[in-house]
Amino acid sequence: MPTLKNIVVVGGGTGTHTILKGLKKFSDEYAISAIVTMADSGGSTGRLRDEFGQLPVGDVRMALVALAEDGDAHDELLRELFLYRFTRGEGLSGHNFGNLLLTALTDIVGSESEAIATAARLLRVAGRVIPVTQDNVHLKAVYTNGDCVVGEHTIDTPPPTRLNEHIAELSLEPRAQLSEAAKTVLREADVIVFGPGDLYTSILANCVVRGFTDAIAESPATIIYVANLMTRPGQTNGMTVADHVRELERYSRRTADYIMVNVTPLPAILVERYAAEGTYPVALTSDVVNGEIRRGDFLATESITTRAGDVVTRSLIRHDSDKVAQSIRALISDIPQ
Amino acid sequence: MPTLKNIVVVGGGTGTHTILKGLKKFSDEYAISAIVTMADSGGSTGRLRDEFGQLPVGDVRMALVALAEDGDAHDELLRELFLYRFTRGEGLSGHNFGNLLLTALTDIVGSESEAIATAARLLRVAGRVIPVTQDNVHLKAVYTNGDCVVGEHTIDTPPPTRLNEHIAELSLEPRAQLSEAAKTVLREADVIVFGPGDLYTSILANCVVRGFTDAIAESPATIIYVANLMTRPGQTNGMTVADHVRELERYSRRTADYIMVNVTPLPAILVERYAAEGTYPVALTSDVVNGEIRRGDFLATESITTRAGDVVTRSLIRHDSDKVAQSIRALISDIPQ
Repeated sequence: MPTLKNIVVVGGGTGTHTILKGLKKFSDEYAISAIVTMADSGGSTGRLRDEFGQLPVGDVRMALVALAEDGDAHDELLRELFLYRFTRGEGLSGHNFGNLLLTALTDIVGSESEAIATAARLLRVAGRVIPVTQDNVHLKAVYTNGDCVVGEHTIDTPPPTRLNEHIAELSLEPRAQLSEAAKTVLREADVIVFGPGDLYTSILANCVVRGFTDAIAESPATIIYVANLMTRPGQTNGMTVADHVRELERYSRRTADYIMVNVTPLPAILVERYAAEGTYPVALTSDVVNGEIRRGDFLATESITTRAGDVVTRSLIRHDSDKVAQSIRALISDIPQ
Repeated sequence: MPTLKNIVVVGGGTGTHTILKGLKKFSDEYAISAIVTMADSGGSTGRLRDEFGQLPVGDVRMALVALAEDGDAHDELLRELFLYRFTRGEGLSGHNFGNLLLTALTDIVGSESEAIATAARLLRVAGRVIPVTQDNVHLKAVYTNGDCVVGEHTIDTPPPTRLNEHIAELSLEPRAQLSEAAKTVLREADVIVFGPGDLYTSILANCVVRGFTDAIAESPATIIYVANLMTRPGQTNGMTVADHVRELERYSRRTADYIMVNVTPLPAILVERYAAEGTYPVALTSDVVNGEIRRGDFLATESITTRAGDVVTRSLIRHDSDKVAQSIRALISDIPQ
């Protein structure tokens, strides 16, 4: 049996979920690990974090669900349960069941990392989900106008006055140490995939953990960056693919070997709708960047067929799990040994 | 392969939990069903009931846990999780994880009974747990002094003025209909076990559901009553074994064939402690009752060894799961075919 290639996906949030969901189908070829940011401070996760003093588990939860076994009704049910959000009940409303499960498990088994491993076994996860740090940290952003903001949630929901600002410096408060498990998988990685996802709050939030850049500096891994489709006001407004790549290079201190850029035209009606909210396509310009640009069709199609057989028109511009994963696979097979 | 005998345990709460836990070990001989009361109105269950408008699941949860597979670490973990109670978090504190799971499942799968069946599969339950009714009901007690109280929780926690009263009439508000599943298992039962547990709020609360007495009137089942060890102020104070048996007969309209009574002396120190709270041993007097009295040692011993190997002195007077189950088994093998 040939050795599996070690793929490490670095991120958090829906972008990472998309990549993991696609890669999972090749788990007979790859040993998949997800390193996820632990600076999530919003929503159900933020409330549990405040009240239990635990690490935020929102990004962990999404990565676990992405890697959970597709299969019979039992698996499907567990996944639905894990994603379930209470919509009624004072104090309960807004809480996500998966977050509550991880919170309860942490109390029962004694540590967050053991709780995550336990949940992974329950969900029959095809891979590992690893918090980038065990430390209790918050993201801190200093903007080009001098504003200083602490908290991932606050950075992600900027006030009108900050919509056109950029983040001059991202850091963690207090400084956090890379978890041992993250260090190990980064060092042993054959391929490290960054993105897609919120550049600062999901991707670079991992790079600013102390020890991260050292770990990947030592890693012989091929670095792939999956470029975002759309900008985000108050974070990446006006930024091109090259701008994203430069920021990744700056914070990760590694040059991406490959940059995967979608070139399928985005549906005009959606682009218009996004524009109304200050979100625009990330432009691929002629700027020279380090690394090889891989153009492709990575876009989720406009209509999807649900399990119930209904055809639903997408209202979101999103990467397609399978297209991205297949392209990553093709790319890996191209890499000279 | 010989047909399994159908055993139905009727009740709710810790007493039923004890019986099921013991009987489960003989699940190669018995098909075990638990019919549980759905009038629980206190604690986490009551809050979920108020806020979600769902049936109370506290007694269901305890019965599921009792019947859940003993086995590997995975089973043990699921059971711990199911019993876990949040002790922190505004709005979350006091909620039981199992209750939240059943609440989420009810939303996901669409009905309480399907949610219970789903949880039973998750926990690999050796038997069936069946709500006595699908209707949303509350217990109502009229006391000998004329007081009328609605709500299981209120009946279970009487004010000082009601500690010496008895319940003259127990009913449900509104009248509830026996669930189809309960009707079927009662009719097909070979053995029906009532008790131990709170006579009115856990045991007779099932009998007052419309259709219950008809279902057992038609049933050829042998009826076993496991007598309580201690009285409960405001419910069964001063009541003897014979008094309990007569109340069961009155509400169930069936005569118990066997009455299992513990005759092992209770630890004096515990009896003293209970007396301070107005709770006394249920006396076996020379009163003549219908049914055969089966005397035995059904008492949980004073000290127990925990999984961690510690020896802990019990502070509760309780039935012993295994002793009761083994005696039920011996009794069943005595029954003339």
